[in-house]
Amino acid sequence: MSAPARIMRLPAPLPLDGGGVLDGVDVAYETWGTLDARRGNAVLVCHALTLDQYVTGEINPVTGRPTWWPQVVGPGRIIDTNRYFVICSNVLGGCMGTSGPASLDPDGRPWGLRFPVITIADMVRAQAMLVEALGIETLFAVIGGSMGGMQVLEWIASRPDQVACALPLATAARHSAQNIAFHEVGRQAVMADVDWRGGAYLEAGIRPAKGLAVARMAAHITYLSDSALQRKFGRSLQDRVAPTFGFEADFQIESYLRHQGSSFVDRFDANSYLYITRAMDYFDLAAAHGGHLAAAFARFRGRACVVSFSSDWHYPPADSRTITRAMIAAGVEVSSLEIETDKGHDAFLLDEPDFHAALDGFLAAAARERGIA
Amino acid sequence: MSAPARIMRLPAPLPLDGGGVLDGVDVAYETWGTLDARRGNAVLVCHALTLDQYVTGEINPVTGRPTWWPQVVGPGRIIDTNRYFVICSNVLGGCMGTSGPASLDPDGRPWGLRFPVITIADMVRAQAMLVEALGIETLFAVIGGSMGGMQVLEWIASRPDQVACALPLATAARHSAQNIAFHEVGRQAVMADVDWRGGAYLEAGIRPAKGLAVARMAAHITYLSDSALQRKFGRSLQDRVAPTFGFEADFQIESYLRHQGSSFVDRFDANSYLYITRAMDYFDLAAAHGGHLAAAFARFRGRACVVSFSSDWHYPPADSRTITRAMIAAGVEVSSLEIETDKGHDAFLLDEPDFHAALDGFLAAAARERGIA
Repeated sequence: MSAPARIMRLPAPLPLDGGGVLDGVDVAYETWGTLDARRGNAVLVCHALTLDQYVTGEINPVTGRPTWWPQVVGPGRIIDTNRYFVICSNVLGGCMGTSGPASLDPDGRPWGLRFPVITIADMVRAQAMLVEALGIETLFAVIGGSMGGMQVLEWIASRPDQVACALPLATAARHSAQNIAFHEVGRQAVMADVDWRGGAYLEAGIRPAKGLAVARMAAHITYLSDSALQRKFGRSLQDRVAPTFGFEADFQIESYLRHQGSSFVDRFDANSYLYITRAMDYFDLAAAHGGHLAAAFARFRGRACVVSFSSDWHYPPADSRTITRAMIAAGVEVSSLEIETDKGHDAFLLDEPDFHAALDGFLAAAARERGIA
Repeated sequence: MSAPARIMRLPAPLPLDGGGVLDGVDVAYETWGTLDARRGNAVLVCHALTLDQYVTGEINPVTGRPTWWPQVVGPGRIIDTNRYFVICSNVLGGCMGTSGPASLDPDGRPWGLRFPVITIADMVRAQAMLVEALGIETLFAVIGGSMGGMQVLEWIASRPDQVACALPLATAARHSAQNIAFHEVGRQAVMADVDWRGGAYLEAGIRPAKGLAVARMAAHITYLSDSALQRKFGRSLQDRVAPTFGFEADFQIESYLRHQGSSFVDRFDANSYLYITRAMDYFDLAAAHGGHLAAAFARFRGRACVVSFSSDWHYPPADSRTITRAMIAAGVEVSSLEIETDKGHDAFLLDEPDFHAALDGFLAAAARERGIA
C-alpha cells in the first residue's frame, strides 16, 4: 500500500562537501502513515547502497520485486505505520528518482561523470531539506542499516537537535582498508567494461552490464558470511550430477552469484554505483570531527540503539563497538546489542527474531516516553 | 643461481580426470642441488595459483621480479639446496612453460578454451611423470602452500608410497562455497572483458588485461587479512592531502590494488587463470575417496606437517584442522601447527619466524631419521 511515487524538487540549491552547490535537486521519496498533530511521530528510514525508497508494501513499483523491509515497517509491524509517519527517500546520487549521475543535467543530457562526487553528509543534507519541507522539525527516529546506518550517524552529528532516537544498524563510522578495497574492485570492474565509455554510456544508449554484474558479484560475497554460503550452497552442483569440466556454472554458488549480478544490472545504474560507493569510502565521522569520534556525538541528547551481527565481516561488531564507546564517552544514552547469527551483514534485512525484538522494545519505550500514541 | 630454464616433454600421453589423454605435454621445471647416490634427498616444491617454478635465486628470469621463496629454499636455508635436491615444476595449465591454454596445439595455434579442463590430480600426474623421468622413486618431501598444499595432499592420496614427508601449508582439502564464489568473480571478470573473445585472444594478438586485473584485485584482497590491510594502508591517502572528489586512486589501498592488478597481467595468461582456478574449485579430496577424507590418507605411511595461519580467512585454520583430524583418523604421524600472525593467507610466503622454525625442525628431524647427510 505504498503512496504513489513522489518527487520533491528541493526549494534551494544543495551545498556540497566537495565544494559549490547543486541546483534543482530532485528527491524521490515515499511516506506511510500520518503525521500527528504535534508533528512528533516521524520516522526516517535510511536505505543501504543498492536499496531505495520502497521500504514496504506489496511490491516495488519500479523493479517489480519485493520491497526490502516489509517485516519491520508496516501496519502493526515494529515501525508501525498506524502509529508513525514513516519517510524514506532515495539517496542523492541514486538512480530511483533522486538526482544522480543518471539524471539529466540542465541541458537535458545525462550527467554521467559530470555529476559532482557526493558524500554521506550531502545525502543527509538533501534528506534534511526534504524533512523540513514536509513540516517536520524533529524526527522521532532515524534508522538504517549499512550505508543507512552511516546516514543515521551523520544525522546525529550534524543535526543533533532534530533527532530523538538514532538506530545505526550493521554499520561503521568509517570504511576500513578492506571495505575500500572491495569497493574499488567493483568500481574498476565497471570502468573496465568497454561499454562504460568513460561514464557516458547513457547518451550512447548502452550500459556496462557485464562490469556492473561483476561488481555486484564481488560485493554480494561480502554481504553473506562464509558459513551462510556453506550452509546454503556448499559444494552442491547446479542441475547436474557431475562437474562438466568446463566454465559453465557447475556449482550452485556460481549460478546464484551470476543471477545476483545479472538481475542487479536491470535495476541499478552503473555510475550511481560508482558515486555511492565513493561516498561510503569517503565517510569518516571521526576525521570530520577533529579525529575524535566522541566529538561527533557530543551535541546529541537523544537515545541511540547500536546493533551489530556476530557473523558480519563487512561491518564487523568491532565497528559497532567503536561507535558505542564513542557515544558513551560523549554522554549519549546508548543501548548496544550484538545479535548472534550466521547470516552475515545481510542479517539486518532478514528475519532475526532477537534483532526485531530489540528494535521493538527500544522504539516502544522511546515512543511511550515521548507520548506517541 | 637458478639452473637455466628447462622443459621436459613427458614421455607418454597424460591421462586426464576429465576423460581422454593429452599428448605431447611439456613440463617446465627448475632444480637446485644434487640428487644423492641413494636418490633419497629430493624435495618437490609445489607452487600456488599465480606462482611458478622459479622458487629461489636472484631473480625470476621470465618476469624479472624476485623469486617467491628464497628465504625458505636455498644454500643454508630451511630447504637447504646443499643438502637436498629441490624440484619445482610449473603446473599443468600454467603459463610459464608447462602446457596450458596459452601453449600451441598440435596445429600450432594457441589452445585457448580448447585446452582440456584439468584438475589438481592431473597436475600431480604430470609432476609424477617428471619426477620419475628424473630417476626418483621416492620424494623425501613434498611441500607447498595454498594450491601447492592441495597438490601435496593429492600426492599422498594418489601416490602414498612415493612420499616420505608431506607438508601442506595454508591449504584446504576442498574449496568452500566462499572460495568458489571469489574464483567465479575472477573468472567472470576475465570473461566480461571484450578482449577476452571467448578465450581466443592470443590469435588476435590482444589480451583481456582489464578483466584479468580486476580478477587479480579481488583475489588479492583474500590473500591479506583485514587487520594487515588496515595496518599497512588504513585510510591513508596516496600522494595527496585531501580527497579529490573524483574516481582517481585517492586512497593508498586503491593505488596498491590497481598496481597489483596491472602488474599481474604482464606476467600471467588470462585463460590460465580460468583453468587453474577451476582446478582448485573442483578439488575435493574427500569426495574423491568415497566422502571420507581419512580414506584419502589411509595408505600414506610417511609423516605430515600441517601448518595454518591464524588470520588466514582464505583457507582458515579450520580447514587445516579438518585435514589433521582426517590424518589422525587414518593413523598418519601428523604434526599440526597454527601460527599466530595478522598477515593472512600470504603469511606462508612471508617472514614468519615461528613458521620457519617449525619447517626447519620437522625437516631436520625427518632427514636425520632417513640418514640424509
